[in-house]
Amino acid sequence: MPTQQLDQHGCLKHFLTIEGLPRHLLHSIMDQADVLLGRDDQIINKAPLLSGKTVIQIFFEDSTRTRTTFEIAAKNLSANVVNFNVRTSSTSKGEHLLDTLRNLEAMHADLFVVRHPQSGAAHFIAGQVKPHIAVVNAGDGRHAHPTQAMLDMLTIRRHKGDRFPELRVAIVGDILHSRVARSQIHALNILGAAEVRVVAPKTLLPVHVEKLGVHAFNNMEEALQDVDVVMMLRLQKERMEAALLPSERAFYTAYGLTRARLALAKPDAIVMHPGPINRGVEIASDVADGPQSVILHQVSYGVAVRMAVLGLLGKKEKRGSDAC
Amino acid sequence: MPTQQLDQHGCLKHFLTIEGLPRHLLHSIMDQADVLLGRDDQIINKAPLLSGKTVIQIFFEDSTRTRTTFEIAAKNLSANVVNFNVRTSSTSKGEHLLDTLRNLEAMHADLFVVRHPQSGAAHFIAGQVKPHIAVVNAGDGRHAHPTQAMLDMLTIRRHKGDRFPELRVAIVGDILHSRVARSQIHALNILGAAEVRVVAPKTLLPVHVEKLGVHAFNNMEEALQDVDVVMMLRLQKERMEAALLPSERAFYTAYGLTRARLALAKPDAIVMHPGPINRGVEIASDVADGPQSVILHQVSYGVAVRMAVLGLLGKKEKRGSDAC
Amino acid sequence: MPTQQLDQHGCLKHFLTIEGLPRHLLHSIMDQADVLLGRDDQIINKAPLLSGKTVIQIFFEDSTRTRTTFEIAAKNLSANVVNFNVRTSSTSKGEHLLDTLRNLEAMHADLFVVRHPQSGAAHFIAGQVKPHIAVVNAGDGRHAHPTQAMLDMLTIRRHKGDRFPELRVAIVGDILHSRVARSQIHALNILGAAEVRVVAPKTLLPVHVEKLGVHAFNNMEEALQDVDVVMMLRLQKERMEAALLPSERAFYTAYGLTRARLALAKPDAIVMHPGPINRGVEIASDVADGPQSVILHQVSYGVAVRMAVLGLLGKKEKRGSDAC
Repeated sequence: MPTQQLDQHGCLKHFLTIEGLPRHLLHSIMDQADVLLGRDDQIINKAPLLSGKTVIQIFFEDSTRTRTTFEIAAKNLSANVVNFNVRTSSTSKGEHLLDTLRNLEAMHADLFVVRHPQSGAAHFIAGQVKPHIAVVNAGDGRHAHPTQAMLDMLTIRRHKGDRFPELRVAIVGDILHSRVARSQIHALNILGAAEVRVVAPKTLLPVHVEKLGVHAFNNMEEALQDVDVVMMLRLQKERMEAALLPSERAFYTAYGLTRARLALAKPDAIVMHPGPINRGVEIASDVADGPQSVILHQVSYGVAVRMAVLGLLGKKEKRGSDAC
Repeated sequence: MPTQQLDQHGCLKHFLTIEGLPRHLLHSIMDQADVLLGRDDQIINKAPLLSGKTVIQIFFEDSTRTRTTFEIAAKNLSANVVNFNVRTSSTSKGEHLLDTLRNLEAMHADLFVVRHPQSGAAHFIAGQVKPHIAVVNAGDGRHAHPTQAMLDMLTIRRHKGDRFPELRVAIVGDILHSRVARSQIHALNILGAAEVRVVAPKTLLPVHVEKLGVHAFNNMEEALQDVDVVMMLRLQKERMEAALLPSERAFYTAYGLTRARLALAKPDAIVMHPGPINRGVEIASDVADGPQSVILHQVSYGVAVRMAVLGLLGKKEKRGSDAC
Repeated sequence: MPTQQLDQHGCLKHFLTIEGLPRHLLHSIMDQADVLLGRDDQIINKAPLLSGKTVIQIFFEDSTRTRTTFEIAAKNLSANVVNFNVRTSSTSKGEHLLDTLRNLEAMHADLFVVRHPQSGAAHFIAGQVKPHIAVVNAGDGRHAHPTQAMLDMLTIRRHKGDRFPELRVAIVGDILHSRVARSQIHALNILGAAEVRVVAPKTLLPVHVEKLGVHAFNNMEEALQDVDVVMMLRLQKERMEAALLPSERAFYTAYGLTRARLALAKPDAIVMHPGPINRGVEIASDVADGPQSVILHQVSYGVAVRMAVLGLLGKKEKRGSDAC
């Protein structure tokens, strides 16, 4: 059954959300990324899969880091990369978003990497572009950040092996507003994780969060018992201003990942964070830099995962019905 | 007879203005662009004509769209492209323009793509650079925007065939301040168009505009009678502020391209616009998106035309006296 | 004896400062740059030495010109170049510098080109990065600007021949705050220049400047007697504001390089300036543009020297113990 991001053969047309993707596809992306990575997590394989292709990065929201990793990934595949700054373009002078998109696709783009502050923006754009263009969601509102979730899954798989059904994972922080958390939850459930726990004060948990297939905790100590993976989220300062949180200090006291708390998890539990980290706000410095932290591995795998996704999508035009 | 943009063999040294170029050269550029374009107007041919060459985009005036199309065109030809932001450079700190240029050429640039708010800036720069450097005018003041005119001509030729002597063309909008209109008029006359009409209120028409080889109209309905091509211009809001126009509303009432007005043109007339369009200001949405609109084709051809021009200029150093 | 920038075989690991480098290494860099340059000072040799490598330019201080020359140099060597704008990144939102660096290196960078307003920043960064990453100092505070000094040395060698022990050089301007002067002085002494003179009002000379191996002058006329090379520095307007200088006018009267003053130097003396020049502040226009000026040659050699340095560092991973 074809969806907006899968064609009738189950091949990837766009990469918009983790939700609804088959398990084998997630593993296939991770397999591709594994092939690209050598020891020391260095990229050892830079096939010119996107040679002659044009990748336009359309960022409606600033994110130097995400833009940079996509840029490095695309250039590693020999793509021509163009950064389109929406703020200084005609769009900011009142041009309709759709007109901007139509113009960019008319410039012979092959792939759009899109970041947008509104949920659903990437889906909307994918629904509008011509058939030969592939859209990658680099984060849309509170909705999804699927390449982040894929690099997180790869990080787990490379550190824990391919045994998701045995793993307990805790995701800690502002679940309510986090597109990262939403994509992580979908990915972990698709991969069959034994248990996904979400940990936050009630003001930062969605209502009926259990329907996402998770167990909700308000108590950090309880939540960390026996988990294999602790995934911290970045605390957005805006939340404090919106009175959803009393203070950074209070958050750290209740939910900050300290060494003492980490000791409640399994001894070989790994600590993850999508970055940039707020030291002393959601995570203690000695934990972020400690032996269980795999935070920088995540960044390295992020380039490989984005290469894998861009590479798969770059084959869109050519592929027949037999293989993706 | 050599000119500033043609050498003694009639070959292109710079691309500064349409004025004074021979007809065969315009067709030659269009021929090259045709070779690059396949069906669906996609670029099918990306010869590495500028491999190892450095293209510096020197923009004294913001134009994300024009800069992006040149960047894509140059990268399609395998050039190294560097965007030089004049605003954040020493030039903005008081360095003389000529010193900036001398420095950029000393950095082993091969091509300069120049956008400048002052008329004549591109000619001035072309008169100053070393012989091996080619200058492309990406728009200078009210003077010229020659690659825009070439993509417009290609759009006409691909939709109407090579039969300019049979075509009536109306250019509608702020003729007085428009470098686009000026370059279009020169191109259409060189290609031998049957008639070029310019349509605007008197305040937005140059005095003695007929000397450019056009027929002037103040009445939109009259002007559109039996034309094959309608070329709309973008209305600059600054004109309203300068009291040259009463209001957007009044302009649209008198000169906006609506379906009813378009019906006055030939049934197969095409509608063009250099973009970005102001929906409901100079053009109705249903016309911009309608079956006669070729606005997005213009954008696609724009990349091909710029590749053709850059490719011709990139051969500057090597070519002998026999061929361009 | 290995240092921070040389390994145990005397090969370049980083390029941070001229101080302490062996003479043969400076000549080796110049030799490489010479190979790249043809007649007319054009780059004739663009070997893909950095193909598949990622160069990240991390600029904590704006410098369009230096960034552009490094970008052109790296692209000439087929590197993937990414400009990381620290001002719009998470670093500006409070992320620790080290976390930013760790993230950038985790993105599979091979070379960092770093510009920073604080002295010692490049050394600090080089001390922190993983072994496979090479750091190039593109200017740090008042400390060093080693590629500028190398292009200056190449300019002297190409114009005067390899006879530094016969040459008298005067460096004129704000010696106290100039990283350019500091690197020039080290380079000239290592290459065995006959005499290095520094010329400035007392407020702009370091205390005990003679310990750097120079002769200090407060009188411009005296200092220029019989010199072979006059190296002017750019006057920073901030110095006037800091009351270290009475006025631009007063500086020009006492230290501006005019034709009359230049006549005191040897008849074939060359005039250099790191750019951008302040015409009529530290140098007369007719001298800057005159027959003895080699200012634009410096810019051209700058690209070649940066290609040479990046090329040497790019071989870091592969090289054995026998050759650099």
